Amino acid sequence: MTPQEQLNQHRGTIDNLDAALIHILAERFRTTKAVGVLKAANDFPPSDPEREKKQVARLRQLSQDANLDPDFAEKLLNFIIAEVIQHHKQARDGS
Amino acid sequence: MTPQEQLNQHRGTIDNLDAALIHILAERFRTTKAVGVLKAANDFPPSDPEREKKQVARLRQLSQDANLDPDFAEKLLNFIIAEVIQHHKQARDGS
Repeated sequence: MTPQEQLNQHRGTIDNLDAALIHILAERFRTTKAVGVLKAANDFPPSDPEREKKQVARLRQLSQDANLDPDFAEKLLNFIIAEVIQHHKQARDGS
Repeated sequence: MTPQEQLNQHRGTIDNLDAALIHILAERFRTTKAVGVLKAANDFPPSDPEREKKQVARLRQLSQDANLDPDFAEKLLNFIIAEVIQHHKQARDGS
């Protein structure tokens, strides 16, 4: 296999993984949306610091086991959670 | 099912999706690392703007089809790419 063919093969892998990421994220946002509706309907507090602490610790451990930088995983989770909070605000404000 | 049970069920889904995200990202970084090594060994340019433009367009389309905000998907891809570039720099500097 030439280097260019090897590169093309890696790029095919990256494209497949990115498609998987998109679909997992889409399902994650569907789920957090349902959680937002459920919490609002039942007067549950919008955030749960205990749960969030456990989520971060678990993801850091999973990352370590998978040889992924745990700091990066935590930053990424925070990035996604910031988007979830924005969705919840938009839902609340009806925008 | 009580609202608390429903919440617990949603949280189980989120935890499973997050574990999937971590493992896909770990594999993605393994692949981009191999790409970095291949490019360095063959004097390929480190970045390829044409390829990146196509990646963004494809992910935005996939996001739209999956009902995920395409702007969020693009921001997330840029967040991941920034990490990849940092990895490449660290590899190059031997740190």
